[in-house]
Amino acid sequence: MKLGLIGLGKMGYNLALNMKDKGHEVVANDVNEEAVARISKEGIATALSVKDLVEQLPSPKVIWLMVPAGEITEQVLENVSGYLTEGDIIIDGGNSNYKDTLRRGKMLKEKGIYYVDCGTSGGVEGARHGVCIMIGGEKQAFDHVEQLFKDISVENGYLYTGNPGSGHFLKMVHNGIEYGMMQAIAEGYEILDKSEFDYDYKEVSRVFNNGSVVRSWLTELLENAFSKDPKLDAIRGVMNSSGEGKWTVETALELQASAPVIAMSLFMRFRSQENDTFHGKVVAALRNEFGGHAVVKSE
Amino acid sequence: MKLGLIGLGKMGYNLALNMKDKGHEVVANDVNEEAVARISKEGIATALSVKDLVEQLPSPKVIWLMVPAGEITEQVLENVSGYLTEGDIIIDGGNSNYKDTLRRGKMLKEKGIYYVDCGTSGGVEGARHGVCIMIGGEKQAFDHVEQLFKDISVENGYLYTGNPGSGHFLKMVHNGIEYGMMQAIAEGYEILDKSEFDYDYKEVSRVFNNGSVVRSWLTELLENAFSKDPKLDAIRGVMNSSGEGKWTVETALELQASAPVIAMSLFMRFRSQENDTFHGKVVAALRNEFGGHAVVKSE
Amino acid sequence: MKLGLIGLGKMGYNLALNMKDKGHEVVANDVNEEAVARISKEGIATALSVKDLVEQLPSPKVIWLMVPAGEITEQVLENVSGYLTEGDIIIDGGNSNYKDTLRRGKMLKEKGIYYVDCGTSGGVEGARHGVCIMIGGEKQAFDHVEQLFKDISVENGYLYTGNPGSGHFLKMVHNGIEYGMMQAIAEGYEILDKSEFDYDYKEVSRVFNNGSVVRSWLTELLENAFSKDPKLDAIRGVMNSSGEGKWTVETALELQASAPVIAMSLFMRFRSQENDTFHGKVVAALRNEFGGHAVVKSE
Amino acid sequence: MKLGLIGLGKMGYNLALNMKDKGHEVVANDVNEEAVARISKEGIATALSVKDLVEQLPSPKVIWLMVPAGEITEQVLENVSGYLTEGDIIIDGGNSNYKDTLRRGKMLKEKGIYYVDCGTSGGVEGARHGVCIMIGGEKQAFDHVEQLFKDISVENGYLYTGNPGSGHFLKMVHNGIEYGMMQAIAEGYEILDKSEFDYDYKEVSRVFNNGSVVRSWLTELLENAFSKDPKLDAIRGVMNSSGEGKWTVETALELQASAPVIAMSLFMRFRSQENDTFHGKVVAALRNEFGGHAVVKSE
Repeated sequence: MKLGLIGLGKMGYNLALNMKDKGHEVVANDVNEEAVARISKEGIATALSVKDLVEQLPSPKVIWLMVPAGEITEQVLENVSGYLTEGDIIIDGGNSNYKDTLRRGKMLKEKGIYYVDCGTSGGVEGARHGVCIMIGGEKQAFDHVEQLFKDISVENGYLYTGNPGSGHFLKMVHNGIEYGMMQAIAEGYEILDKSEFDYDYKEVSRVFNNGSVVRSWLTELLENAFSKDPKLDAIRGVMNSSGEGKWTVETALELQASAPVIAMSLFMRFRSQENDTFHGKVVAALRNEFGGHAVVKSE
Repeated sequence: MKLGLIGLGKMGYNLALNMKDKGHEVVANDVNEEAVARISKEGIATALSVKDLVEQLPSPKVIWLMVPAGEITEQVLENVSGYLTEGDIIIDGGNSNYKDTLRRGKMLKEKGIYYVDCGTSGGVEGARHGVCIMIGGEKQAFDHVEQLFKDISVENGYLYTGNPGSGHFLKMVHNGIEYGMMQAIAEGYEILDKSEFDYDYKEVSRVFNNGSVVRSWLTELLENAFSKDPKLDAIRGVMNSSGEGKWTVETALELQASAPVIAMSLFMRFRSQENDTFHGKVVAALRNEFGGHAVVKSE
Repeated sequence: MKLGLIGLGKMGYNLALNMKDKGHEVVANDVNEEAVARISKEGIATALSVKDLVEQLPSPKVIWLMVPAGEITEQVLENVSGYLTEGDIIIDGGNSNYKDTLRRGKMLKEKGIYYVDCGTSGGVEGARHGVCIMIGGEKQAFDHVEQLFKDISVENGYLYTGNPGSGHFLKMVHNGIEYGMMQAIAEGYEILDKSEFDYDYKEVSRVFNNGSVVRSWLTELLENAFSKDPKLDAIRGVMNSSGEGKWTVETALELQASAPVIAMSLFMRFRSQENDTFHGKVVAALRNEFGGHAVVKSE
Repeated sequence: MKLGLIGLGKMGYNLALNMKDKGHEVVANDVNEEAVARISKEGIATALSVKDLVEQLPSPKVIWLMVPAGEITEQVLENVSGYLTEGDIIIDGGNSNYKDTLRRGKMLKEKGIYYVDCGTSGGVEGARHGVCIMIGGEKQAFDHVEQLFKDISVENGYLYTGNPGSGHFLKMVHNGIEYGMMQAIAEGYEILDKSEFDYDYKEVSRVFNNGSVVRSWLTELLENAFSKDPKLDAIRGVMNSSGEGKWTVETALELQASAPVIAMSLFMRFRSQENDTFHGKVVAALRNEFGGHAVVKSE
């Protein structure tokens, strides 16, 4: 299939190569000209602009967006949809909030353009050699591009989830689960680290990866990490987040679902981004007031 | 009533003065000779040693312990009980773990000595002008000293809670509640502090203290704290803890009771005592492994 | 001051009586004609319609809304603002989401109408005898009605918090704190209830209320509750919520503030509204899969 | 190697077969005579009593215990150690609390008996076809039985963790991680279940298992579970626990480690075992007191 791909970041770049390997004809574009030049050397056709990209495609045109969620997806979508007509298909492979997806889908539907929401998991390596994808949107649009999804994913690694928004929603929840799993694993290692025993974390991860109940891709990745830095001395425990965990908790609140573990995983990330907290000051001040307990002075 | 008081820390010292004000005859002792000399100037009788203290008392002897829980209480108890005989009464006014209390009570009962567990709340000011006390132990021992409890507590501020251990258990739970209330209040102020609005926290506490649903002694104390340091700039948010919150969570685990709020209050205290965490490093390393997300390097 | 009051629910009805006691001239209206008839007998002027109510007021007209947040406030506001002109003042005394407040304030400002956001705490009894209020909005509007706020609140029980939205924001956070405090107290009693001791909860609350660190209006209310139903046998532990706790957690997420205790309080409420959970089924199914652990069959 | 195996429950029975497959000569015993008879038909030697079992073994005798942790392990250990002499080895393959392990190890060491703590993971299927084991204890004892560990575990699936207790400690933490991972996954499915979308959970698990970041043995097991009961309608969400999660949280408290996710996983299990809660009643009663909010009456 000939298709356009807009966005050559870590994920998009590797997806393009993955598609090419499977025999698809990709026309790539990015605002970063260096990335465009680089992928051109890989034998992938490129476009100078979104307009140019669209013009190179046969109808119905299929365009895969792999750009940051939020503002940038919004702008690119507005731009690209201006050049499309009835029956064309936009696949949003990024981590868009499913509410944005629902809104955009309705807007594009008025123009007869299909908007397929595709949650993409598996990390950078997955993008290159086989992703896991969860696809929502109109069935006929999915049918038209199913072979592409099948080709770029690992075996049994794609799922049509139904109504528009359901793909991005599922990917959001997947990431929420991921937050919880990571924090659970991390708390375990923290307990090991504070214990009276002297564990070799690389070896611990190795044994976890072979036959244990917690064996998982995450524990495999951790074995890699510990093999490079046995005590993780080189890094600080600052846990950033890119939005999907927060959306999962917001969604839990809306649906009145109890999600204590996912929520706590997120709050510990927020906490890790601060050197000191105002809530801590309040508690320390209170303890001093009622019990005369000593406080730690600011430096 | 004439009684002995061992332990002249912040709480014991003020309790002694409180007892004296109410007409009780206190004989005080502490390993800190300076504290003994100081209270002597307040017109309170003192003893050079535990033995001396016991000898100054009529039978049945009543001795109030106000020393740190754990090892020190254990030692003092062993020491003092060596000089006591059947029918004497030891009141443990400290924050002893109720399991220690149960064990000690059984041991002392074999010698015919009463061990009364007395949870003491109200802070330093309460110790001086009127405490809140929760008393467990044999009924006849309680009856013998009830007037003392009545005199040193605020009106309606003492309760006989029944079986040995029940006083310290209730005080432990009281402190667990206190942890949760403090953290709840503190989280509220943290949200205010991160908001787009510019609140005067002293004024916020003041209005909370007058007619709101959350009005409490803790919010009053917070008004005091903010009146001295409007943004708590002088202190760091390091939240120490002295054990009762931990025991409350341990007890919840044993009783299979859900206590998420008290537990989280405690975990946030632990977290506040660290500048960095191993669990944070693990999560950061994992995010780097699967998504190539940037890590913060150690300094 | 002569003012209109729309909304004669539990809070509005009692506020009207409170205002009258302090010498203010209230014109009341509600869609519930029975409530209007009832308050008329209390000697309070009433209006047949919003239009009628507005016409009875001198300029600048002051109208206090005390209606449910969300849709109803939206409708009433649209209705009433149609009859108002430049310089008139609407006080929203309900629990509106501060984001709605910000939006509405801007809209009304275009017409020159002041929108004052007034968070009202203290429960039904407070409404009748002295509320606690937190007021945001334009300073000149606040100044115009400050005497009214002063009169209906308890001493020192009102605060001008500054910019539009800041009153409702503070009330929201107040309620978030309230959620956390209530859950902390409740967890404590659950631990008592599961313990080996036999506490009289009414007495426990009574002693907490006299001199303890956790003494608060909430523990006083609990003493009332236990005095009527010593073990709360008559009710189920279903914890409903009306929105402000959820908004507080949503706001914490937006501000990247750690609020584990407030969040957990909310999740336990959600949990209490279900007899069974899907997450529980998933965990039970997993335990059965890997360890052959028995499951509880559905009835 | 010829060794004794005491305990023919699900795990022990399958371990015995696993050992036999790898050429080891097992002498099995259990208080359950039916299990003994059954395994005898599989061609495994059996003993009528612990004494009989010990007598059948060459010196140094190696005995694997696979009995429930706590009281039963304590009794069996006392019994079996009475027949052992210097240089013999007991392997405790159960989920003993590492503190018990430390205590027992010291006691047995006085008699010159080695006590090897072996945390065994992988579920029933793992026991049969390849476990994951974490082994603490004296190095010379480990060396003596290493080949056995190697044979019964999956490739790379055993680890000598060092000092006595370290194997059971690591297994405990492993289970704590497991609690957190399971709850994270379960919360995700609960959010899916409450959403506006209509997911096929078996298919969701299937796609998660192929290339996603959360792929894990637990998600594979969940695919099995959903393939048998698509909505888990047949079971209730009662989440039991067997102790290791609780010990992990207790250990976190002792080590002052923040473990919010593991703790919350446990508390949600406790909560699932109750139809109603006292903390819920307290909150409901309080809401009624201050706001007149309706309560749900007991049936």
